[in-house]
Amino acid sequence: MLQQKDLIIPALGPCLIDSPLSQAGQAAIKPDQPDLDDLHAMTCVDDSARILLENRRDRLVEAGCDIRDMPAFEMAGPRKKIYFDPSKLHAGIVTCGGLCPGLNDVIRSLVMELHYRYGVRKISGFRYGYQGFIPSYGHEPLELTPELVEPIHETGGTILGTSRGRQDYGRIVDCLQQMGVNILFVIGGDGTQRGAMHIADVAAERGLKISFVGIPKTIDNDILYIDKSFGFETAFSVATHAVLCAHTEAVSAVNGVGLVKLMGRDSGSIACHTTLATSHPNIVLIPEIPFKLAGDGGLLNYLTERLKRRRHACIVVAEGAGQDLMKDQNLGTDASGNARFKDIGEFLQQKFTEHLSGLGMDHTVKYIDPSYIIRSVPATPKDSLYCLRLAQGAVHAAMSGRTEMVIGRWRESFVHVPMKIITSGKKYVDPDGDLWHSVLEATGQPPQFA
Amino acid sequence: MLQQKDLIIPALGPCLIDSPLSQAGQAAIKPDQPDLDDLHAMTCVDDSARILLENRRDRLVEAGCDIRDMPAFEMAGPRKKIYFDPSKLHAGIVTCGGLCPGLNDVIRSLVMELHYRYGVRKISGFRYGYQGFIPSYGHEPLELTPELVEPIHETGGTILGTSRGRQDYGRIVDCLQQMGVNILFVIGGDGTQRGAMHIADVAAERGLKISFVGIPKTIDNDILYIDKSFGFETAFSVATHAVLCAHTEAVSAVNGVGLVKLMGRDSGSIACHTTLATSHPNIVLIPEIPFKLAGDGGLLNYLTERLKRRRHACIVVAEGAGQDLMKDQNLGTDASGNARFKDIGEFLQQKFTEHLSGLGMDHTVKYIDPSYIIRSVPATPKDSLYCLRLAQGAVHAAMSGRTEMVIGRWRESFVHVPMKIITSGKKYVDPDGDLWHSVLEATGQPPQFA
Amino acid sequence: MLQQKDLIIPALGPCLIDSPLSQAGQAAIKPDQPDLDDLHAMTCVDDSARILLENRRDRLVEAGCDIRDMPAFEMAGPRKKIYFDPSKLHAGIVTCGGLCPGLNDVIRSLVMELHYRYGVRKISGFRYGYQGFIPSYGHEPLELTPELVEPIHETGGTILGTSRGRQDYGRIVDCLQQMGVNILFVIGGDGTQRGAMHIADVAAERGLKISFVGIPKTIDNDILYIDKSFGFETAFSVATHAVLCAHTEAVSAVNGVGLVKLMGRDSGSIACHTTLATSHPNIVLIPEIPFKLAGDGGLLNYLTERLKRRRHACIVVAEGAGQDLMKDQNLGTDASGNARFKDIGEFLQQKFTEHLSGLGMDHTVKYIDPSYIIRSVPATPKDSLYCLRLAQGAVHAAMSGRTEMVIGRWRESFVHVPMKIITSGKKYVDPDGDLWHSVLEATGQPPQFA
Amino acid sequence: MLQQKDLIIPALGPCLIDSPLSQAGQAAIKPDQPDLDDLHAMTCVDDSARILLENRRDRLVEAGCDIRDMPAFEMAGPRKKIYFDPSKLHAGIVTCGGLCPGLNDVIRSLVMELHYRYGVRKISGFRYGYQGFIPSYGHEPLELTPELVEPIHETGGTILGTSRGRQDYGRIVDCLQQMGVNILFVIGGDGTQRGAMHIADVAAERGLKISFVGIPKTIDNDILYIDKSFGFETAFSVATHAVLCAHTEAVSAVNGVGLVKLMGRDSGSIACHTTLATSHPNIVLIPEIPFKLAGDGGLLNYLTERLKRRRHACIVVAEGAGQDLMKDQNLGTDASGNARFKDIGEFLQQKFTEHLSGLGMDHTVKYIDPSYIIRSVPATPKDSLYCLRLAQGAVHAAMSGRTEMVIGRWRESFVHVPMKIITSGKKYVDPDGDLWHSVLEATGQPPQFA
Repeated sequence: MLQQKDLIIPALGPCLIDSPLSQAGQAAIKPDQPDLDDLHAMTCVDDSARILLENRRDRLVEAGCDIRDMPAFEMAGPRKKIYFDPSKLHAGIVTCGGLCPGLNDVIRSLVMELHYRYGVRKISGFRYGYQGFIPSYGHEPLELTPELVEPIHETGGTILGTSRGRQDYGRIVDCLQQMGVNILFVIGGDGTQRGAMHIADVAAERGLKISFVGIPKTIDNDILYIDKSFGFETAFSVATHAVLCAHTEAVSAVNGVGLVKLMGRDSGSIACHTTLATSHPNIVLIPEIPFKLAGDGGLLNYLTERLKRRRHACIVVAEGAGQDLMKDQNLGTDASGNARFKDIGEFLQQKFTEHLSGLGMDHTVKYIDPSYIIRSVPATPKDSLYCLRLAQGAVHAAMSGRTEMVIGRWRESFVHVPMKIITSGKKYVDPDGDLWHSVLEATGQPPQFA
Repeated sequence: MLQQKDLIIPALGPCLIDSPLSQAGQAAIKPDQPDLDDLHAMTCVDDSARILLENRRDRLVEAGCDIRDMPAFEMAGPRKKIYFDPSKLHAGIVTCGGLCPGLNDVIRSLVMELHYRYGVRKISGFRYGYQGFIPSYGHEPLELTPELVEPIHETGGTILGTSRGRQDYGRIVDCLQQMGVNILFVIGGDGTQRGAMHIADVAAERGLKISFVGIPKTIDNDILYIDKSFGFETAFSVATHAVLCAHTEAVSAVNGVGLVKLMGRDSGSIACHTTLATSHPNIVLIPEIPFKLAGDGGLLNYLTERLKRRRHACIVVAEGAGQDLMKDQNLGTDASGNARFKDIGEFLQQKFTEHLSGLGMDHTVKYIDPSYIIRSVPATPKDSLYCLRLAQGAVHAAMSGRTEMVIGRWRESFVHVPMKIITSGKKYVDPDGDLWHSVLEATGQPPQFA
Repeated sequence: MLQQKDLIIPALGPCLIDSPLSQAGQAAIKPDQPDLDDLHAMTCVDDSARILLENRRDRLVEAGCDIRDMPAFEMAGPRKKIYFDPSKLHAGIVTCGGLCPGLNDVIRSLVMELHYRYGVRKISGFRYGYQGFIPSYGHEPLELTPELVEPIHETGGTILGTSRGRQDYGRIVDCLQQMGVNILFVIGGDGTQRGAMHIADVAAERGLKISFVGIPKTIDNDILYIDKSFGFETAFSVATHAVLCAHTEAVSAVNGVGLVKLMGRDSGSIACHTTLATSHPNIVLIPEIPFKLAGDGGLLNYLTERLKRRRHACIVVAEGAGQDLMKDQNLGTDASGNARFKDIGEFLQQKFTEHLSGLGMDHTVKYIDPSYIIRSVPATPKDSLYCLRLAQGAVHAAMSGRTEMVIGRWRESFVHVPMKIITSGKKYVDPDGDLWHSVLEATGQPPQFA
Repeated sequence: MLQQKDLIIPALGPCLIDSPLSQAGQAAIKPDQPDLDDLHAMTCVDDSARILLENRRDRLVEAGCDIRDMPAFEMAGPRKKIYFDPSKLHAGIVTCGGLCPGLNDVIRSLVMELHYRYGVRKISGFRYGYQGFIPSYGHEPLELTPELVEPIHETGGTILGTSRGRQDYGRIVDCLQQMGVNILFVIGGDGTQRGAMHIADVAAERGLKISFVGIPKTIDNDILYIDKSFGFETAFSVATHAVLCAHTEAVSAVNGVGLVKLMGRDSGSIACHTTLATSHPNIVLIPEIPFKLAGDGGLLNYLTERLKRRRHACIVVAEGAGQDLMKDQNLGTDASGNARFKDIGEFLQQKFTEHLSGLGMDHTVKYIDPSYIIRSVPATPKDSLYCLRLAQGAVHAAMSGRTEMVIGRWRESFVHVPMKIITSGKKYVDPDGDLWHSVLEATGQPPQFA
């Protein structure tokens, strides 16, 4: 299993940032508010500003190379020179993949920043993901104005609509070319960003100067080199309600078991954060750590012992956990090509019931699957703020001519991260890391059910 | 199907209240706070106060009998004479059946009212429903004090625990007799109250003077002669989140269908109220109104037409709706003897998908089942208030020696309702009533899919 | 002090409903959805349906008159005959006075009901209260369509804007006449409804057939003959947060006093409901019950004793309480002509501090004034539902030609209430009623500080 | 004005960590759960792990010194050797100063971690801040057990109570000595931590081996070298409600001005974060940036222009802003010795009203002061999680014998920060930093009103 920490070592080398358009900036800014020129000058970030990928001094010392050679990300922020002429600029925005809290915040803030800070007057929202570029679907682009987007951040979902799956890259570039789009903001996960790189390749082959800037989206918080993804805090915050309910059901019944399944196909990040945010779960099961049901060290025994000792148990399971235990069913793949998952929640509910019935223990197993409830909600205040700042950074980056990069946050600083880096793998919960150790301390569960 | 309105006509007769102990009150109150004596005198409700069952003048005129003979409920409130000596009194509390928001509010307020208003010092909480009276289960009663119950209303569930199903009535009375319990507050649904009547019968046969006072509980709001049951508002308020998410998922996808299954085995009350509280659902399906899937006037056609017109649809289905459409499976009964329900949500999701795929329409069906999330939460402020007032009324009734009755609210007044009346049937959503008409106006759906 | 119960006795007489236009209905409905005709017929309410003002049987018996003569309200709902031709109808909506949760719900539901149920296509929203009819203010009316109002119920406030104070009645009628308005929905308090009656008088003098239908608004819940006003539940629900914070501040300090001032100029309704909804306040002060500060039975002594006994106290005061204690200041009147209130919260904070300092008691007094926070919020789900149903009823009433009436709810039924009745007085918290008695039981405070 | 960035340069030097007790650890852990030994070994953090204070590569290169000499914080986490024998250990906890969301989370997690992870069985909670150590106040310590603290994180405030101000250091050490306290967890702000250093000095003079470990608390987020303080996110999240209400009041009135005062005596951190989290405020005023009322570039002119352009304005002011404008009043100091602040909110409300009235503009100014509402609430899920992890880190540090340090988080890593460092100054909003720049971009206001 690829780990984030593994990626750090080979990444030791020169600055990761390499944007083909970034040296070409020429145009002067022409904002619509007279005082913005001064503000722009005042707030500009130096082009040499870099945030170290690694900030542990002992590891840097151990690596032994010159600090000048240590990998680092370019800091985000307004640049002295901008590449595009705002008065002639046509910006596009597209949202792809599953819903995530904050999508409308990002759209709103992109539009506000483009309009008020840079004076951009032509902004198109492409509908329903990459489908929106393909004429045969018949999805007309939406003209995005401050008036239209003003209230949208109070609402979940995306006003642009979204869809999964790829579309023909050539035809997407046809559309961008025909409409004269100069900047495309791509809000989506690693698959979407990978798609954006392909589209950028086609555009480059045709000699088009289009900037592709991503705002990485993943409700699972599993994108590399991003402290956290937007919407993630909202998701686990909402998930705490389900866990609290499961805990309540559990303690209100004789040998009550409250079981909650949470999103997380490959990463137990939501499961872990939700657990730590409530302190109620006694067992957490995540995709990164396989577990055994039967036997001495198995989950079923542990559950039984706990029920005998405390008469209730609260269990959180990530949807991707324990897939190996349900080998007998092949459910195919979904529109994005992801393998359909078997329902580990229903599976465990059945196994618990069978096991406890077999022991003759009076019991109740209540299973809660909040599913989309944690992702279709509006963003929490903290996530709204985060979306706003990501969008501001994305606009600054795009206006300066950067491309094939996403806006990210690394160790509390907003940075530019090349698309090729974030799509090089996935972020997982590290079984040897402090997040998982905190979970073990909080739940008291053993490191493994094996 | 039995309707509440049907019950009203035969009920025309003498006052419904007939409590065997109610004439026997003797003891003077002995509260622990000196000023309560005056307060008690000041706030006493006259024993002759009655609330009419029917308050439509035209119907009363049509009935043609003397107003003195019209059915009415006794008003709740403190009585001049109380039956029990608070200083010697042993009160018991038990919670039965499924969780419902407000259980802890009711427990808390019963204890506070008994302790502070009447000076009762011995209050026992029986654990895990009727199991708590049967020694073999080993559930020791909990001593309930103001200190213990002070913070519990901030939390969902019941601190006493609960269970489903009946226990031997004779052994329950054995327990009450041995412990010297004089008043038992029974918090539970119609089945639980029916049980309480049987227990009361056994106690009466043994010559025991025990008052049985119920606080009716039903998250489905399906108890007769109660404006609304406690916890119901909380339940549909929480359910609105799920509906809003389903709506958001629907509008964010191409031909998106958001489908929410809500509690309601026999009654569509939660489904209807949740719908009116959000205004988002376009179709509501309830147990009281059968529906057809296929054919011209069927649900699938209506859905297809709506998607063509508006590109999204939000659908709410009560868990008990459309059970006749899934005849091929017998799932048996649960611990309370209720028939296990087939999952109408998963069934509809499958049917929608098949139908739309068959038509070649690009679509997404997102199914949300909030399940226990709407019932394990703490009560809303309004429900907390309601629980408090129900508990105050229940204590006054019990202290005055009333028995085999529940505390209810009828047309905004707190009243005493005989257990035999509320257990005589169930309250349903009337297809000819104004609630359902409001739903039809709000959704625009046809009165029937037939 | 005028009490609601006092009004009931003189009101014994013929049906209260007397709408000049109500006999004149002619036009057939022409809805835009073909199935609505059937639905309309199916759901019509009989014109003879009446809800008794008094539903206590003992009082009706005592009154001794024939039930046919007992005062009653006409039931709300769709009517077989409608007065206006929907295809030619111009409906107007105006919101007046202070903000209240649910205003946007009411506006939205009026528009939806007019549009979808009756096929009305011309709906104007007048801006900023009665100012919106006076050309010199320059507030252009807003054209209200389903698309525009679709999302507004998620937001507090009123999209129409509001203002206080009256405007020239003749000029308002000029505007209605010029624009050809046939129905005006007036959302506002008793002052606003009184204004509507004057406007109706002028219109009648000019022979105009305009229907004036009110939706009564008062965050204080002080309108007569309305079970509760819309937004009231939201207001006290939000206020519980402030009370919980005050309680938390109190228990976290040595002799901590948490003091919360809540809205309620003449009525302590919010103060009482908030108290019962949290169970935390130990003292509640309302305008209906004067109190004394000093002396044996005074508030200060009671507070001191409580602090000695329990080390903390939580106090709720309605803004209109204790105004007689602060005679030394005349603050004039506001734009609606209401006397400006002195700040009883700051006054009490100061008095408490002085008193406790004088006694040498270590103490902390934390004062919280949530002010507009409880009224500018979106409605709770329950209030949204209530607003929807009020609006549906208001539209049915107006379409049937009723005028100078408001839509209300009386003992759980939606009814028509003549404007002249609801403007005949105010609803107060009855010191001898069960609401106040519940407060006394819940707080343990004496009936009076005297 | 001292800035955080200024402190970084002189801080270049050897590792900041220097804990007198840290070399003395000897005792083996004796946890009550057999598998914890392995877990402890598995999760131990290397003593050499350090997090760089500065992680900007360009700045480190510029500094020019060897990376080995760059200032860094010791990483938090369990240590191989622990100093205290858990079976004999007596741990104490005290909370000082104003309330802050998450206090109970921290208390709960300290107790849980001490009990379950290390097997500590004697934990005392000192009451009402430093008063709890002084016998004359008569506050008996509270014995803290897992059972007692289990539900407290659902509630705001601190179950220990709190107070402001210092107490005699010698007498505090007397108390610790008499009770045999080995570790004291001090939850409080910079003043409280400064006090802890003095207490530690006295204890050291007496040769006592007591570990003092702080958990820094500041609702204003103004403590140095902490990414953010616990409770801060909750505070600004709750504050967004007040801002949303102010915005709603503003847009609902003719030339409506919604004004919100938020906590922040010296730092505008809450004001800025609340603003970015809602996007509604048009003007933000903070203590770090003085402003002028009158004149061309003054606040009043800007407000007037905005009202003419947009007809409403939403303004957020930190309580410490503009104090220089209200020189005519000296309000003394509070119990902690802080200067009492004049109410800038009331002052601005009056100035706005005077100014707009002077111009003859119809207007409404609504002022909201949420005050304690933002600090007495329970922590948000994110803050609960943060408190849990801080507490885990604090316990590990204390058990390893570290002292006179606080647990902090620096650039997403949990670290040990010497008390003398965090008490060396305050963190402010940097007028040249990216947070303030984001605010300027989001509001469109000029950098200064001057």
